[in-house]
Amino acid sequence: MASILLINGPNLNLLGTREPELYGATTLADIENQLRARAGELGHGFDCMQSNAEADLVDRVQQAAGHTDFILLNPGAFTHTSVALRDALLGVAIPFIEIHISNIHAREEFRRQSYFSDIAAGVIAGLGPQGYLLAMQAADHLLQD
Amino acid sequence: MASILLINGPNLNLLGTREPELYGATTLADIENQLRARAGELGHGFDCMQSNAEADLVDRVQQAAGHTDFILLNPGAFTHTSVALRDALLGVAIPFIEIHISNIHAREEFRRQSYFSDIAAGVIAGLGPQGYLLAMQAADHLLQD
Amino acid sequence: MASILLINGPNLNLLGTREPELYGATTLADIENQLRARAGELGHGFDCMQSNAEADLVDRVQQAAGHTDFILLNPGAFTHTSVALRDALLGVAIPFIEIHISNIHAREEFRRQSYFSDIAAGVIAGLGPQGYLLAMQAADHLLQD
Amino acid sequence: MASILLINGPNLNLLGTREPELYGATTLADIENQLRARAGELGHGFDCMQSNAEADLVDRVQQAAGHTDFILLNPGAFTHTSVALRDALLGVAIPFIEIHISNIHAREEFRRQSYFSDIAAGVIAGLGPQGYLLAMQAADHLLQD
Amino acid sequence: MASILLINGPNLNLLGTREPELYGATTLADIENQLRARAGELGHGFDCMQSNAEADLVDRVQQAAGHTDFILLNPGAFTHTSVALRDALLGVAIPFIEIHISNIHAREEFRRQSYFSDIAAGVIAGLGPQGYLLAMQAADHLLQD
Amino acid sequence: MASILLINGPNLNLLGTREPELYGATTLADIENQLRARAGELGHGFDCMQSNAEADLVDRVQQAAGHTDFILLNPGAFTHTSVALRDALLGVAIPFIEIHISNIHAREEFRRQSYFSDIAAGVIAGLGPQGYLLAMQAADHLLQD
Amino acid sequence: MASILLINGPNLNLLGTREPELYGATTLADIENQLRARAGELGHGFDCMQSNAEADLVDRVQQAAGHTDFILLNPGAFTHTSVALRDALLGVAIPFIEIHISNIHAREEFRRQSYFSDIAAGVIAGLGPQGYLLAMQAADHLLQD
Amino acid sequence: MASILLINGPNLNLLGTREPELYGATTLADIENQLRARAGELGHGFDCMQSNAEADLVDRVQQAAGHTDFILLNPGAFTHTSVALRDALLGVAIPFIEIHISNIHAREEFRRQSYFSDIAAGVIAGLGPQGYLLAMQAADHLLQD
Amino acid sequence: MASILLINGPNLNLLGTREPELYGATTLADIENQLRARAGELGHGFDCMQSNAEADLVDRVQQAAGHTDFILLNPGAFTHTSVALRDALLGVAIPFIEIHISNIHAREEFRRQSYFSDIAAGVIAGLGPQGYLLAMQAADHLLQD
Amino acid sequence: MASILLINGPNLNLLGTREPELYGATTLADIENQLRARAGELGHGFDCMQSNAEADLVDRVQQAAGHTDFILLNPGAFTHTSVALRDALLGVAIPFIEIHISNIHAREEFRRQSYFSDIAAGVIAGLGPQGYLLAMQAADHLLQD
Amino acid sequence: MASILLINGPNLNLLGTREPELYGATTLADIENQLRARAGELGHGFDCMQSNAEADLVDRVQQAAGHTDFILLNPGAFTHTSVALRDALLGVAIPFIEIHISNIHAREEFRRQSYFSDIAAGVIAGLGPQGYLLAMQAADHLLQD
Amino acid sequence: MASILLINGPNLNLLGTREPELYGATTLADIENQLRARAGELGHGFDCMQSNAEADLVDRVQQAAGHTDFILLNPGAFTHTSVALRDALLGVAIPFIEIHISNIHAREEFRRQSYFSDIAAGVIAGLGPQGYLLAMQAADHLLQD
Repeated sequence: MASILLINGPNLNLLGTREPELYGATTLADIENQLRARAGELGHGFDCMQSNAEADLVDRVQQAAGHTDFILLNPGAFTHTSVALRDALLGVAIPFIEIHISNIHAREEFRRQSYFSDIAAGVIAGLGPQGYLLAMQAADHLLQD
Repeated sequence: MASILLINGPNLNLLGTREPELYGATTLADIENQLRARAGELGHGFDCMQSNAEADLVDRVQQAAGHTDFILLNPGAFTHTSVALRDALLGVAIPFIEIHISNIHAREEFRRQSYFSDIAAGVIAGLGPQGYLLAMQAADHLLQD
Repeated sequence: MASILLINGPNLNLLGTREPELYGATTLADIENQLRARAGELGHGFDCMQSNAEADLVDRVQQAAGHTDFILLNPGAFTHTSVALRDALLGVAIPFIEIHISNIHAREEFRRQSYFSDIAAGVIAGLGPQGYLLAMQAADHLLQD
Repeated sequence: MASILLINGPNLNLLGTREPELYGATTLADIENQLRARAGELGHGFDCMQSNAEADLVDRVQQAAGHTDFILLNPGAFTHTSVALRDALLGVAIPFIEIHISNIHAREEFRRQSYFSDIAAGVIAGLGPQGYLLAMQAADHLLQD
Repeated sequence: MASILLINGPNLNLLGTREPELYGATTLADIENQLRARAGELGHGFDCMQSNAEADLVDRVQQAAGHTDFILLNPGAFTHTSVALRDALLGVAIPFIEIHISNIHAREEFRRQSYFSDIAAGVIAGLGPQGYLLAMQAADHLLQD
Repeated sequence: MASILLINGPNLNLLGTREPELYGATTLADIENQLRARAGELGHGFDCMQSNAEADLVDRVQQAAGHTDFILLNPGAFTHTSVALRDALLGVAIPFIEIHISNIHAREEFRRQSYFSDIAAGVIAGLGPQGYLLAMQAADHLLQD
Repeated sequence: MASILLINGPNLNLLGTREPELYGATTLADIENQLRARAGELGHGFDCMQSNAEADLVDRVQQAAGHTDFILLNPGAFTHTSVALRDALLGVAIPFIEIHISNIHAREEFRRQSYFSDIAAGVIAGLGPQGYLLAMQAADHLLQD
Repeated sequence: MASILLINGPNLNLLGTREPELYGATTLADIENQLRARAGELGHGFDCMQSNAEADLVDRVQQAAGHTDFILLNPGAFTHTSVALRDALLGVAIPFIEIHISNIHAREEFRRQSYFSDIAAGVIAGLGPQGYLLAMQAADHLLQD
Repeated sequence: MASILLINGPNLNLLGTREPELYGATTLADIENQLRARAGELGHGFDCMQSNAEADLVDRVQQAAGHTDFILLNPGAFTHTSVALRDALLGVAIPFIEIHISNIHAREEFRRQSYFSDIAAGVIAGLGPQGYLLAMQAADHLLQD
Repeated sequence: MASILLINGPNLNLLGTREPELYGATTLADIENQLRARAGELGHGFDCMQSNAEADLVDRVQQAAGHTDFILLNPGAFTHTSVALRDALLGVAIPFIEIHISNIHAREEFRRQSYFSDIAAGVIAGLGPQGYLLAMQAADHLLQD
Repeated sequence: MASILLINGPNLNLLGTREPELYGATTLADIENQLRARAGELGHGFDCMQSNAEADLVDRVQQAAGHTDFILLNPGAFTHTSVALRDALLGVAIPFIEIHISNIHAREEFRRQSYFSDIAAGVIAGLGPQGYLLAMQAADHLLQD
Repeated sequence: MASILLINGPNLNLLGTREPELYGATTLADIENQLRARAGELGHGFDCMQSNAEADLVDRVQQAAGHTDFILLNPGAFTHTSVALRDALLGVAIPFIEIHISNIHAREEFRRQSYFSDIAAGVIAGLGPQGYLLAMQAADHLLQD
């Protein structure tokens, strides 16, 4: 049994309420509940957090050291701007999967750059809220290796 | 009657106390008071906030959804770095005017890039504290369309 | 009492007749009349001209030396191409505000470069014909400093 | 029956007299006469102009609004420098074909950029004076759709 | 019931035999068998092909028009070079997921550019052969929308 | 009498069946038949081929040496990627016109680069299937020089 | 006697516990104690803070105005991303030395850009925790000028 | 005896009246008189013109064909923007020297690009009004070869 | 005794028949015969192939695994475009020397980029057909280490 | 006891005599004497040299192999241009600290690139002549590890 | 009476013996003699040197401090590579004119960058050996200001 | 019989003593002896030199004019920085082969640029000391043409 942590970055608390054409109608609570349930079925511990504050995400990643085996991370806008979060992940060396709900490759040019993809175990983008479930499944698989 | 929100980003609390050759001697409180008075004359509600924290600005923009009709925004240094604030504004879809007190085009090269100009209703730059009043006036005009 | 000159560059004579989704329905004559009236109220002299010819604009700026206290300038397409007009403004050293009716930041990439912004007293963009009135007001304010 | 306008930009009045290895021996008058004749055969009205002055071209395009159905345009050197002419064409929204006598892709690097190609109905380059006739034929075809 | 097509590009026939540190020990046949089985469980038709020839991939995508509901595509090296395959996918307009076994973001700079990501329904990268199963699952989900 | 060869690159076999808003409803067979007829009227021999395989196009160009006087070439997606086809054309030194049905300048950025334009006798772009006929006419003209 | 302030940015609280090959085994508390002792020997007041939050750093710099004579700053990841912190330092105009424990020039490309170096009194990089002591010594020296 | 033509571009009519720190106190009339006198001494014919209009310069260069042996050209701001003037000079193939009064290399970045230097017989920059006399002398020398 | 494979890419079958100023008069058959003879003298097995098809080259490299000790590779135009061939070589991990007959550094800018040089044992360019013999000799030398 | 070598590059012999606002009033002899004294206190051997000749610096670094334990290097202008000196340092593999007296980040753009920083043990910049003493101290510290 | 120093950089000793199509038939000794004579006529002292060694040029410039009033400098290839020579000139602050015999703008791209033009009193390029005499004349003129 | 000159640039005197993983264990003397012997066998005269000083290399190339028929050149670090050496080679117009012992394409980015490749007869890179022998052989071959 492993411990899995779901982290969502800025504005993902708006999920299901804003820009549904980009992000769908599922709320963040829906996703967190689905993942908690799925983690339970897979026999894993689960925790989750969301914040609009970079420092909260950095703090949470730091605290995860020694307690968390895998992180599912949607950095939101910090994908393109947060070296601090990258450094926190490098610091704790916990494997993670980078998730994006919308297809970041089909949007503004600046969204094509990620501070996380090259250090992630994998990347899942554009598949909507389902992407989180796929990432959970992939994490479960990777934890068995 | 509409509701107008004034948001100022990092270091704008220093206004009137630091670097007067760039930003003038008017304080942020002066500006907020002038705008509150002017909003009253125009028959609009008015609220304002300033923060050095990106997350506070993101939170405030998110909370504005459904309550605010127009935002007057001086993102300060976040002009050039905050995709999170851009995403919050895209998320709530409240029209806003981007304001800069100094002429950002006459300063460092990196200040020429803005994450807000292309999604703003308009941009006013370099006109000092008066720029806020002009933006209020423009907002009033746009709200009548 | 100061003397204010309004200069409009190429294709702005089409205002109100073409591409209304970008530029609105107000004609250039409307704008010139509004500004003349407003200048009168503020106690300023007012003159205006529009031309599709770069040389006419350069000539007019040169002639303004010694007669004009402030220029309101919408360079139109010359914003992105006319070093000659920039040089004329540098030569006469009359303060000016750069005005754009549409949001140049939300259009083609090449419209993001301006030969005027870094030497302007200020920039107002995207606020439609009202931008001219705001610029007049800002000029009036700056002339009192 | 439609009305077709041929516009030639700077230095094309030199055609047939200068740099024949690049532009051939046919004069501009030859081309204009050939196109007038061909337009007649096709049952179209025809007008033409050439100028070395950007403003003349802008003015002529503006005046074409409501009178001209199709423009055949060789912008000459303005291909690479005139946003004003581009804006005039966008303003009047008359379909046009961009013509180049020489192969601009085989010359200086800066000649590869065009302010017109992305808004043209089509582009014909490198085929000599015959390119004008082909453009006339294409215009006739497009006007029948 | 839908019809799902798995397409693998150049060198993926080497899977499981070469560079296991990058691509793992699973063979392409293993993957194809797993996906066929999984498609069967989900009630979908399944077909697959691999080729080192760009034209074979283009042909196969063209033939898929009218017969295939979803494509699972690992373009291999063509990710970074094949506009022809991109055009074929645009031509038939069949939704597809782009899959990469290794983390292309952690390798050579040129592997960060993809001709497919911006037109894909989604992208899964770096998760090894399991990525194919996740893509199948995602396709099943998307086909139900 | 000359011998003219029409070569069409990848996905042009889809013409008339896919993406009609970009490429029109005319099929490739229609075009080939029109050109064969027109070549006959002009007294020229005519041959044509289409392939999705770069090597087929290279082979065909190589075989044309000594048999073909002019090539009409729509390289399709290979416009932007095939140095091999460029080298074949340089090798056999047969003059050719580059044809594009849609306006490649109005599409994705990467479609603005061509490996053929600087070595072509001319370029015709954006004029639909008619572009082929214009190219035939231009070839006929050039062959008479 | 002067007042010296040590500021450490995000993830520097991990010092001595994570990635020792990059940052060494000394903890941040060790460093702060060493510098406090050294400041005492030199007859200077000393204060220190560390935060993962950009706003905390900005606030602390703002509060330093009028109280602090010199800042020793390791901006951590904010070196490459925080214009807000740069603006705070420009605002209070307190001289500072930029310190990096590891050699930022030998790591990822993006770590070569600093928003602080051009406005710093000096830069010390790559010399490990000792770099802080050297910076203290340099500050002491500069304060005597 | 040869015929020498002096051409000055936009804003050079301001010489001696504006921005003396960049351009000195000598007027354009002074320069023209000095050069006329010097040409007389050297036994050359002399003509001169200045215009703020690109088309006037293009026209004048075109008219020079067959009448002028050497051009002394200060293109002013057109140095950086006028392909039309370049084309006119290429068209008439009259040798010319490019002159700049101020040191264009020590000013804005965009002033470092010239559309004339690579086709000029020579370039003289930064030497003030004397540069014209040096150019006259150089022309005289070159005409004797 | 080792086994050496000579691979030539697109258009190298034209050797000796086309563009002799770039590639010389020796035919590919001449080269292959020379190398076979030389391999025999050195006691090595020898095989060779040429193809205009990228997939053929990829296939041949894949098949070489376990049978070939060294590859002599002239990728022709694929030097600049084929990631697939690069991947095949990385996949089979057979050492190879990259050969170019002409000096690719003295031709078009795009020929300066190679997908092979950084993974090759060595590069020989510009020395004509003799380059193949030198590469054979170098391979013989390297195989003895 | 270790052996420390101080190397100063071109124009550092001017120290204290030229451009004091950039480099201060201390002469190079002062610095060398201070460092010799300090090395003595620390129990290290010391040698120093300065040259305006790149080859002298390269030769001196080569000769240091086997005799010198640490190099203190101010490459002066060679910072930005000398790959040869970089190669010499790579060749002898003696650890070194890169020193700059002035803040190279606050000067011309080209001074931001260093051929040494990424292979240095550390970098000290902008702290004036004191930077040498700090580097000596750091070297002493590093030699004890 | 002033003291003028002529400095010529690498390979200028070849003048008149090599590449006459670029540099003419005049030897460096011819030029030096002509300038010495001309300096005498103008009542100035004159000295000259040429070296292929960057350090020699740097040394000579350093020694000129206090003895030389003006430098005529043809840096040859060092124009594009020598920051050390630039720094020497900045250090001694002697005004200088940069001279190039051939038109560096009409040659390789890398010859368009100069480390000297922005700090030179003026630049004379492309006018052959005569350029030195013009520079002498200009120096004489500037020394009289 | 021809005269062949071997020139080695900076740090190549370290060959065989430093960084053997990059450059092998053969010394420069070994190489020079091997090449002298080989030249003798081929009936050619042979001379060689190595220097860390750019000026020495330039001087040696200049002196070779009229005495040397072919140069074998390993410019070492000057490959990427010496326009002066390039100019010397252009000046004497002696054909040369550029040799690199290590694979410069597999090292730092800046090593991919060469000031020599585009003017060399050929380039041999990455093949170790043997590369010199291959170059000698190639030179012998080219001298027979």
